[in-house]
Amino acid sequence: MRLHAVKTKVVSIGDDLVKIILASLNEQGLQLEDNDVLAVTSKVVAIAEERLVKLSSVKPSDRAKRIAKKFSLQPELAELILYEAGEIYGGVEKAVLTLKNKVLTANAGIDNKNAPKDYVVLWPGNPKKSAERIREEIRRKTGAKIAVLVVDSGLVPLRKGTVGLALAVAGFKPVKDCRGELDIYGKLLAITQHAIADDLASAAHLLMSEAAEKTPVVLVKDAPVEFDDGAYDSAEMMMPFKECIFTSTFLGDADDSKKAQDLRSSKL
Amino acid sequence: MRLHAVKTKVVSIGDDLVKIILASLNEQGLQLEDNDVLAVTSKVVAIAEERLVKLSSVKPSDRAKRIAKKFSLQPELAELILYEAGEIYGGVEKAVLTLKNKVLTANAGIDNKNAPKDYVVLWPGNPKKSAERIREEIRRKTGAKIAVLVVDSGLVPLRKGTVGLALAVAGFKPVKDCRGELDIYGKLLAITQHAIADDLASAAHLLMSEAAEKTPVVLVKDAPVEFDDGAYDSAEMMMPFKECIFTSTFLGDADDSKKAQDLRSSKL
Repeated sequence: MRLHAVKTKVVSIGDDLVKIILASLNEQGLQLEDNDVLAVTSKVVAIAEERLVKLSSVKPSDRAKRIAKKFSLQPELAELILYEAGEIYGGVEKAVLTLKNKVLTANAGIDNKNAPKDYVVLWPGNPKKSAERIREEIRRKTGAKIAVLVVDSGLVPLRKGTVGLALAVAGFKPVKDCRGELDIYGKLLAITQHAIADDLASAAHLLMSEAAEKTPVVLVKDAPVEFDDGAYDSAEMMMPFKECIFTSTFLGDADDSKKAQDLRSSKL
Repeated sequence: MRLHAVKTKVVSIGDDLVKIILASLNEQGLQLEDNDVLAVTSKVVAIAEERLVKLSSVKPSDRAKRIAKKFSLQPELAELILYEAGEIYGGVEKAVLTLKNKVLTANAGIDNKNAPKDYVVLWPGNPKKSAERIREEIRRKTGAKIAVLVVDSGLVPLRKGTVGLALAVAGFKPVKDCRGELDIYGKLLAITQHAIADDLASAAHLLMSEAAEKTPVVLVKDAPVEFDDGAYDSAEMMMPFKECIFTSTFLGDADDSKKAQDLRSSKL
């Protein structure tokens, strides 16, 4: 498997992202071929799709102000989190844990990093559609039948730092079900699934970095994935609350997200 | 960055792992160079170090029997988990959530996959020392100054399937602290750390796969990591309970792992 970090110009509101990606690949002498995977940060997808909000344009509610105070957030950001998140559970300094598009993520995915001053970037409105659109556009413009992976930064319990997280995939199966497979001794596998898309998102995330590298795209060649014509979002990569070893342990017999403490329905 | 899956013979108890790795690289025409990273599954490290237990040799306690019944585990496995885990919190069918070597992991890392029939494999006794030893032995035998990464399968809350998790590293910094760095607009970064070793472990895990591929080693060239002569285990990659967005939310103001429900001190 080979991964190439692709340097681009700074992506701005309303830019033609596919045009920028193709120009950047061309400048760096990188050729798109069938069964390549193009990993793209959710950040530039969202910016191109104009999913930015100027914080001063937001009027925080009293509830947003209380949440902001508790977790040292800007009240305007807290208000946006209340709007964007499916659920809000709790948090730490500067970050609240939310359920957004069936992903447990910090601050509903809203982030001011690599956003213009005073702006924050939301997640793409529909990451799966974005992945499909980029895939189809590249097919139309180059003839190459590639796959697209939308990558965000994710967190793992008790681990320092961020890893890559797949928000959506177009063109390969994000989770490999190993049921029925045998191990090297011919025994049936008990742990049955492999988070292919998250592993690949982490590989790409390593090259995208977190600061000013301006490499929001990674071209992956010879990825060991099962290519298809499907498109998948986080719903397809989600484990139910009661089957997840973490939520099941910490929330008891919760069979949906509602059993978790939602800050919106608490005294906050 | 280029990753090569390295096929090996089946690693058996007491095998000389470095010898097997060097022979396999040689057969596949792969050359070790300075600043390569060799990712190795914790499984083959543990097997070579004789960290296997025959389940029938374990006598389960009454507490192990109760835990086994609650989570549909073999009582002998539950007994081993009680012995190996620092803490045991709860679980789901066939998996209990434990703290082991400062990592939240299923079943204290004990696994029967790719273990000989009736045996289970524990984690390496000291993954950091194993990583250092492999690195030094390869240096001695080949002259190449490489880095070594010990990889296990990990879980992410509410995500289907396993991803790669770094148990130990020798030869590069596992976590990049981005404090003081600027984003593309010159703003200081708020989210300050990048889990380099976990991202790279996931990249390698993608090629190692989960079944009978017999590729327990991945050679990584041009990894964007900061090489050094240090060795690191999960203690260096661990976030304190009270700073972790997940544990802080689900356990409240817990400032150590003790606030989590430990099954050993509960009525179980």
